[in-house]
Amino acid sequence: MKNIIVGQSGGPTSVINSSVAGVYKKAKELGVEHVYGMVHGIEGFLEENFIDLDDYLSDNNNYELLKRTPAAFLGSCRYKLPKVEGNEDVYEKIFSILEKHEIDAFFYTGGNDSMDTIKMLSDYAKEHNKTQVFMGVPKTIDNDLPITDHCPGYGSCAKYIATSLREVIRDNASFSKNRLTVCIVEIMGRNAGWLTAAAALAKDETGEGVDAIYLPEVDFELDKFIENIKKLSETKSSIVVAVSEGIHDKDGKFICELSDGDRSVDAFGHKQLSGTATTLANIIAKETGFKTRAIEFSTLQRAASHIASLTDINEAEMVGEKAVEEANNGNTGMMVTLVRKSSNPYSCETGIYDIHDIANVEKKVPIEWIDLDNNQMKQEFIDYAKPLIIGELQPIYKDGIPQHLLRK
Amino acid sequence: MKNIIVGQSGGPTSVINSSVAGVYKKAKELGVEHVYGMVHGIEGFLEENFIDLDDYLSDNNNYELLKRTPAAFLGSCRYKLPKVEGNEDVYEKIFSILEKHEIDAFFYTGGNDSMDTIKMLSDYAKEHNKTQVFMGVPKTIDNDLPITDHCPGYGSCAKYIATSLREVIRDNASFSKNRLTVCIVEIMGRNAGWLTAAAALAKDETGEGVDAIYLPEVDFELDKFIENIKKLSETKSSIVVAVSEGIHDKDGKFICELSDGDRSVDAFGHKQLSGTATTLANIIAKETGFKTRAIEFSTLQRAASHIASLTDINEAEMVGEKAVEEANNGNTGMMVTLVRKSSNPYSCETGIYDIHDIANVEKKVPIEWIDLDNNQMKQEFIDYAKPLIIGELQPIYKDGIPQHLLRK
Repeated sequence: MKNIIVGQSGGPTSVINSSVAGVYKKAKELGVEHVYGMVHGIEGFLEENFIDLDDYLSDNNNYELLKRTPAAFLGSCRYKLPKVEGNEDVYEKIFSILEKHEIDAFFYTGGNDSMDTIKMLSDYAKEHNKTQVFMGVPKTIDNDLPITDHCPGYGSCAKYIATSLREVIRDNASFSKNRLTVCIVEIMGRNAGWLTAAAALAKDETGEGVDAIYLPEVDFELDKFIENIKKLSETKSSIVVAVSEGIHDKDGKFICELSDGDRSVDAFGHKQLSGTATTLANIIAKETGFKTRAIEFSTLQRAASHIASLTDINEAEMVGEKAVEEANNGNTGMMVTLVRKSSNPYSCETGIYDIHDIANVEKKVPIEWIDLDNNQMKQEFIDYAKPLIIGELQPIYKDGIPQHLLRK
Repeated sequence: MKNIIVGQSGGPTSVINSSVAGVYKKAKELGVEHVYGMVHGIEGFLEENFIDLDDYLSDNNNYELLKRTPAAFLGSCRYKLPKVEGNEDVYEKIFSILEKHEIDAFFYTGGNDSMDTIKMLSDYAKEHNKTQVFMGVPKTIDNDLPITDHCPGYGSCAKYIATSLREVIRDNASFSKNRLTVCIVEIMGRNAGWLTAAAALAKDETGEGVDAIYLPEVDFELDKFIENIKKLSETKSSIVVAVSEGIHDKDGKFICELSDGDRSVDAFGHKQLSGTATTLANIIAKETGFKTRAIEFSTLQRAASHIASLTDINEAEMVGEKAVEEANNGNTGMMVTLVRKSSNPYSCETGIYDIHDIANVEKKVPIEWIDLDNNQMKQEFIDYAKPLIIGELQPIYKDGIPQHLLRK
């Protein structure tokens, strides 16, 4: 491979840049001349908005900083490639840019929507006898890509959630039973509850943890929820509940829609959700008279690189390296996967898998991992998730604040 | 001093437990027999709900864990002592409990309201020739206690705010100018803007930081705010603004009240504020059509011990030790203060000051430290705040999550 290019797409994570670092590292080991980065994904690519990663990453200090930098260093996008039919000009433009810059391989880090881009480009290349290869590099805090055991980005987000919830539990328990506060914490995850399930990891040795967990995999019943809070209040002096932003009733109506009707829709047609915790906090206050508090982890959960999981950072780098290695072997139209060999002791390797089985498919939390009677996660989930949050990569502090690497 | 007692009051911080640790440490050095902790402050004290800190802190591992545990290890309260007149029974009860347990000194960590408790008890003791001494130990994320240069709890909260804002800025900048997002971050601080001002510390070497900062010390003008966002949008592809929960218009009407009328009131008669960021995000979306996002740091900012400032932890411990030392010297009705000797290099000592000049007085951010034209903080503030966020105390991790010390 003479030159290669890497891009970032979709919602950012704490470790998406470690995958870019991995792509760069392996490519340089293999003697690739230029490792380009597309600025703002395929959107920037179409404008030939590239940077040469040598300008940043040939300096090892910058390489280390990049691994500690959250969000998309290269810039991300939410551009969905149109169908080939009727849009041949877009595809011709993409391949002409690749040819012009002698780019032999194209790497894209992203989730379900981004893997669709790899699928369409690799299919087009095969059909038109193009030699360039296209590889998907998994990245999503949502952990909802199929085939792969888990997704880079998930572990760090889960670690943030468990750490912050434990702190919220401490804070909420500061006052006595006569000032009982019901704290409802909203966690990202539209259709898949992997992140909200990570709330279960906050439990400590004493058994003190989140009092109830509500995932979008299970239809939400408001009456039962209120009943559960009342029951908890009989014995607890502090109640902390974790809810997914995507919880909905049996008719599919989102709980946040109970309070306000219109919601904007993103480029992929997904409804923009928020306000689930606030909606529920208001309902509980009204129904029980308890003091309530709503907390939304919002983008903090996906950007908190200062408490990223070292396991996650290492795996994000690993999938970047693997993508380059496999592209160099001539593979295309594949996504790198993480293949768990063992949970205890934890061991995980990389593999590759046909992108057609991955793009646009969502993997949800298995219902049998949910303790429906107690609104908790079962041990199977704990065993699955716990290894993914282990380890820390010490931030590089300056003036008391973690440093990041920025594009010039 | 034969026995002493320490209590925690008011809203918790990341480092309030370090002050309890300091009280314990110094008392043991001085040969105090029992160091009691009141469970839930004066409220628990009145029920003789004590623990003996030896049961926890004679083990050095627990001492280290306590310094890393956020919120009130002993439990807090928001109990306001009634006036002596007509409530003599309450005061008699307090002193009879002290006498029964041979407690010679009473230490209370807290903010303005809690210092009032120390004032009333020490005044009562003097008037009734009681020998017990009462010392205030400063604690408040709000940094609004007078006389003291700053308050333990502030530095860690400021460090969390600066760190998280830098991460939010990275996240918000992931997308390109054609997906400009205006992110409005709400920070605690009802009347004093010290915490919101700490947003200025997020600025990095490249000058990239928060685009505007709005403190409650300055009347908020909605028209000018909208105008500023529009102006910023001309050159920026991402806008992040920090606002205090307590910003209000020239008539004193809180901005969050623009969207919803009724607000509950806490035990001290303070209005419960929230939703300022959401209110402004909705207004901006309507007025400009930009995508907006509201983030509330909520209790996360005061509980994030995993990113606490080592300077703050050390000073919190120091004020606890000083309180015991001065009580042992026979002082009463005083609060420990932090006295800055130099900002660069930073050096700070402890002092004591008459509680009458402190209780119920609020210290605000000096107007001359605010760059009113640019909605930013001036260098004077940066020089003041920067030393307070320096240093980290590595959490003690287990299964990937920081450990805390809990009461049995």
